[in-house]
Amino acid sequence: MNNFQFKNPVKIIFGKETIANVADEIPKDANVLLLYGGGSIKKNGVYNQVKDALKEYSITEFGGIPANPEYEVLLEALQVIKDNDINYLLAVGGGSVIDGTKFLSAAALYTGDTPWDILKNSIRTEVGMPFGTVLTLPATGSEMNSGAVITRRETKEKLGMGGPGLFPQFSILDPRVISSIPQRQLANGIADAFTHVLEQYMTYSVGALLQDRFAESVLQTLLEVAPKVLKDPTDYEAISNYMWSCTMALNGLLMQGVPTDWAVHAIGHELTALYGIDHARTLAIIAPSHYEYNFETKKDKLAQYAERIWNVTEGTLEEKARIGIEKTESFYKGLGIDTKLSDYTSEYEGTAETIANRFKERGWTGLGEHKSITPEKVEEIVKMSY
Amino acid sequence: MNNFQFKNPVKIIFGKETIANVADEIPKDANVLLLYGGGSIKKNGVYNQVKDALKEYSITEFGGIPANPEYEVLLEALQVIKDNDINYLLAVGGGSVIDGTKFLSAAALYTGDTPWDILKNSIRTEVGMPFGTVLTLPATGSEMNSGAVITRRETKEKLGMGGPGLFPQFSILDPRVISSIPQRQLANGIADAFTHVLEQYMTYSVGALLQDRFAESVLQTLLEVAPKVLKDPTDYEAISNYMWSCTMALNGLLMQGVPTDWAVHAIGHELTALYGIDHARTLAIIAPSHYEYNFETKKDKLAQYAERIWNVTEGTLEEKARIGIEKTESFYKGLGIDTKLSDYTSEYEGTAETIANRFKERGWTGLGEHKSITPEKVEEIVKMSY
Repeated sequence: MNNFQFKNPVKIIFGKETIANVADEIPKDANVLLLYGGGSIKKNGVYNQVKDALKEYSITEFGGIPANPEYEVLLEALQVIKDNDINYLLAVGGGSVIDGTKFLSAAALYTGDTPWDILKNSIRTEVGMPFGTVLTLPATGSEMNSGAVITRRETKEKLGMGGPGLFPQFSILDPRVISSIPQRQLANGIADAFTHVLEQYMTYSVGALLQDRFAESVLQTLLEVAPKVLKDPTDYEAISNYMWSCTMALNGLLMQGVPTDWAVHAIGHELTALYGIDHARTLAIIAPSHYEYNFETKKDKLAQYAERIWNVTEGTLEEKARIGIEKTESFYKGLGIDTKLSDYTSEYEGTAETIANRFKERGWTGLGEHKSITPEKVEEIVKMSY
Repeated sequence: MNNFQFKNPVKIIFGKETIANVADEIPKDANVLLLYGGGSIKKNGVYNQVKDALKEYSITEFGGIPANPEYEVLLEALQVIKDNDINYLLAVGGGSVIDGTKFLSAAALYTGDTPWDILKNSIRTEVGMPFGTVLTLPATGSEMNSGAVITRRETKEKLGMGGPGLFPQFSILDPRVISSIPQRQLANGIADAFTHVLEQYMTYSVGALLQDRFAESVLQTLLEVAPKVLKDPTDYEAISNYMWSCTMALNGLLMQGVPTDWAVHAIGHELTALYGIDHARTLAIIAPSHYEYNFETKKDKLAQYAERIWNVTEGTLEEKARIGIEKTESFYKGLGIDTKLSDYTSEYEGTAETIANRFKERGWTGLGEHKSITPEKVEEIVKMSY
């Protein structure tokens, strides 16, 4: 097991009828900016529940944060924060709204030239404006971590940021919000959380036995509840386990003391930036090719995964490992998610070179747990994903 | 899954050569009281590592905190805190030293008549004196939770306390401290951590699938590493997983959204208070009888445990459940831990009545996940454990 440092101070408030608790968590004299996305919270009743709970508060609103939160839109929200002396942010939404709120938390207190520097120069945020979240779409785990990914429309870039100042002070998780989520987004959320675990697990063993088992626990639970969630998103046992699994998949616990990959995300982000493909679907496009391409360095863990998650008992280590890849691809397809770039766009030629060039320009010389995946190798992986 | 609220802000610093990090975590101007136990830290080198790291600090020392930290001894330490204007506590030791430090953290800021009230009246500590820990004996999980158990010698009482103000600010876990721990204490630690998980797991299902799997992950890991730890306590893979499993067994995560039992602990504490039996050994005495006595309400979970942890595939649910109990008792015995009270004292007659009367006097009308274990039932369980 590798050395690690771990601290996650987010207060989780989980369960039925918990949204009203928001008023217990925000200081009474706070000047709150309520942030949300495309308006689904007004249809599913969450907006009203939050507004009812906070009716004694000073509240300004900013809606319209898009999926893959856009820098350009967030700059408008930043102006609202400054114009209204906002000192507390409340994200009501999914990962995009929460990530956007994290950017604002950092940008509101940033004293440099332009807040884009935070992303471009990977500036770590030690102290941000305090914020809480009401989660309406389980998937990204952003509600219990300190990272965010922001997209810049004009340059088609999607970059990450983070720091200990960007943990939510609290996150409210009422699984019943899931009942109004469209099937497509439910499937995306399951694939996203599943792949988050794989990025922290499908590397090589460092003898972190407990972390492996925790990762496998989340994978097993997601597999068990996925069909139930898709069939009946009011099935409380299924949706509550789904929601908690998504949070645990990326709250930092699974990655302690182990190598992590994240190449699937790094490449996938480019597909979203270039073609607007849903984040989770980009992961499903890249992951199988990535595991195939890096088979030799990942085969031990792939075989363990095949044995423990897919109950593969027969065959050599290599055979088991291959089945692990096949099962992963089948899993995505079973969620209704296509796994080739050509399923999403007919103009895929040249994508591999474009992404490789972008990585070169950024000086990204080596991705993955061995930092060995050069832009040239990225190019090959993307071509395998056509 | 039941509703829950979870927040655990402890910073964990885990791994080799991490003890020197203590200086990064304590404010430079702190007036520190260094607390430890019987002096083993002076033999194993931890004392010198801590002192070296903190040589620029103002440090007062208080050694001699005994196993099952005694109120009477802690009152002496409390006087040292007051006499020396101490404002930061550093526990260097196992669960007893850390629990004692938590009591002091609470008592130092307590404004009531006598600090015994904190225990007697279950006063929750919202704000305590800040403290950190350097863990030298994995077992109790106290390094990453906000609870403590304190013993009063004169009345032979052992009572719990807690509150959000009693989380350590940081805990340093260097697994290599394990190499100098006597076999008896290693075995105790494994049994203690294993039983901590059982107290949060061996109840009844509320459909918390992920929590079940996390609990099973800790049990499986402890079973896997236990023989290796006992055989060679310098085996880093074994001891690092053992240490992290002990912490995860009782840092709050496993108990979120599920019913918990803790009757084994409540009864076991009395055996320690009455006879001075090691804490972990009292759990091994009580657990099998407790599961046998409450077989009907626990059999579903016992069977799941037998299947998933002990790979029992044959038999009816009841048969599997019985094997689960037998395997648990065998596990304790395999650690060299006897599982009957008569193995520890020849004067066990009347123990059951004494404990039942104590519970009646305290008004404890019902223990366990159903709050259904009356003092009369406790009496029967203890008799089964003779």
